[in-house]
Amino acid sequence: MAFDAIETPFGKIDRIVGGSATYVAYAASNFLQPILQVSIVGGDFPKEEMAEMRRRGIELDGVEIKKDKKSFFWSGKYHMDMNTRDTLVTDLNVLLEFNPVLPASYQGSEFLMLGNLDPVIQRKVIEQLEERPKLIVMDTMNFWMEVAMAELQKTLKLVDVLLINDSEARQLSGQFSLVKAAKAILKMGPKYLIIKKGEHGALLFYGDQVFFAPALPLEEVFDPTGAGDTFAGGFIGHIARTGDISFENMKRGIIVGSAMASYCVEKFGPERLKEITREDIDNRIQQFVQLVNFDIELV
Amino acid sequence: MAFDAIETPFGKIDRIVGGSATYVAYAASNFLQPILQVSIVGGDFPKEEMAEMRRRGIELDGVEIKKDKKSFFWSGKYHMDMNTRDTLVTDLNVLLEFNPVLPASYQGSEFLMLGNLDPVIQRKVIEQLEERPKLIVMDTMNFWMEVAMAELQKTLKLVDVLLINDSEARQLSGQFSLVKAAKAILKMGPKYLIIKKGEHGALLFYGDQVFFAPALPLEEVFDPTGAGDTFAGGFIGHIARTGDISFENMKRGIIVGSAMASYCVEKFGPERLKEITREDIDNRIQQFVQLVNFDIELV
Repeated sequence: MAFDAIETPFGKIDRIVGGSATYVAYAASNFLQPILQVSIVGGDFPKEEMAEMRRRGIELDGVEIKKDKKSFFWSGKYHMDMNTRDTLVTDLNVLLEFNPVLPASYQGSEFLMLGNLDPVIQRKVIEQLEERPKLIVMDTMNFWMEVAMAELQKTLKLVDVLLINDSEARQLSGQFSLVKAAKAILKMGPKYLIIKKGEHGALLFYGDQVFFAPALPLEEVFDPTGAGDTFAGGFIGHIARTGDISFENMKRGIIVGSAMASYCVEKFGPERLKEITREDIDNRIQQFVQLVNFDIELV
Repeated sequence: MAFDAIETPFGKIDRIVGGSATYVAYAASNFLQPILQVSIVGGDFPKEEMAEMRRRGIELDGVEIKKDKKSFFWSGKYHMDMNTRDTLVTDLNVLLEFNPVLPASYQGSEFLMLGNLDPVIQRKVIEQLEERPKLIVMDTMNFWMEVAMAELQKTLKLVDVLLINDSEARQLSGQFSLVKAAKAILKMGPKYLIIKKGEHGALLFYGDQVFFAPALPLEEVFDPTGAGDTFAGGFIGHIARTGDISFENMKRGIIVGSAMASYCVEKFGPERLKEITREDIDNRIQQFVQLVNFDIELV
């Protein structure tokens, strides 16, 4: 849970609530509640935002508030193609002293989504759960591959689903072909691998099986910040709501995640996620069905 | 119909048969025969290749042979990502004097596929057909947008389906968003627009409808040369075999084209296309069905 400053070819905002846990929670809370949040913020994090989260069934007992410190702050600028961005500022602030302590009320959680963060911290959360969740999903990024590969590999052994983008999959595996990259990564611990390709959709690998979900072709991508986290929130939200961790249901989770992400990019930060209804989500899922639906007889 | 010299990160070949008409014809001949070829070659074009084409039901009455001239020659080198390439040599040779004359036996053709070439020459073929074909599909490239935009726009008004890649769609329309690009291009003449995105699949636009077909995630892309033409050949081959020019059937055509293209890239030039059987094609189409198949209830 953090603040972002964002510049895109379409606009600029100096300060908006962000952070992967924020996006994951807002997205997932559409599918089931409560969401049990674990994070750390400074005294500057808006009370109203926390009230809004609680209204949406997001419990904040596991969110530490450092009253006289500042929240994590990231600032970035997107290029015209919206697939690449430059990081302008990263102020870790409270993240420097993040040592998550799980409230007793969080015990028994069946589904755990680990947002992108230091793999040591991600592992601390896993290890505090007395009973292993039914499914552990983990996000990470190239930064941790560069500075903490050994720790990252330890954490990878503990998770079921890894969620990364295509360049991260290439970096983690040392393979250019995504099919070869997936084979290598599935030997590192996770049984499922989701490779996000931004506007080019997402791939789900499981054993020798592969599923592909497109991204919805959009007239405009206003701000891609948080789209990957929103995808993750929709995915885990769908899986947790249905309680079904089969490959078939993970496919559906990816479509749901893609639908949520397609809303996220329509406005700055998580704003759009707070406006949409169940009906909006259903409509968008229906668009995905139409987008890839074909009926073919063999030649 | 031409010669190519190709260098990829995986190998190098100094001279292999190529050219868009070659790939289109080899791909389409799997679905119906005869294919009525229109092209020009030099005296250097191999007799054995022409015999092979005839064996596959590709009629060559419309292929002019300039005995003491050389065939078109292209040489290129692919980068590691296989999505970008440098052109090393372009020797137009016989193409400089290409003035296609349609044999009388070609009259009455119901389906016309115009490979990438000077839009003036493409138009000459359309204009020689006494009866307008049921469907005219056209490929083009950025080069013609740069040197012959006015001629290109004239030809665009005469075709039903335009087939281009994503960067060409952006260049032709002046729009970065592919959805906006498609809207603009559909006002230029074609009723259908197929945007090829290489390893990221293809989009079909028609009115307000859109269909997306993924590319098959492959372990290795050995040589992408001709993949776009092979896609076109599979597409028009399927449409012509079924005689059905509905949007629904064009979706199937795109899946068939994608399946053919996924074979094309496995070997240098059109080699792989000459090896595969109907059963291979069916198997690959089945893989596409599996790749995107999901079954979802609304949330």
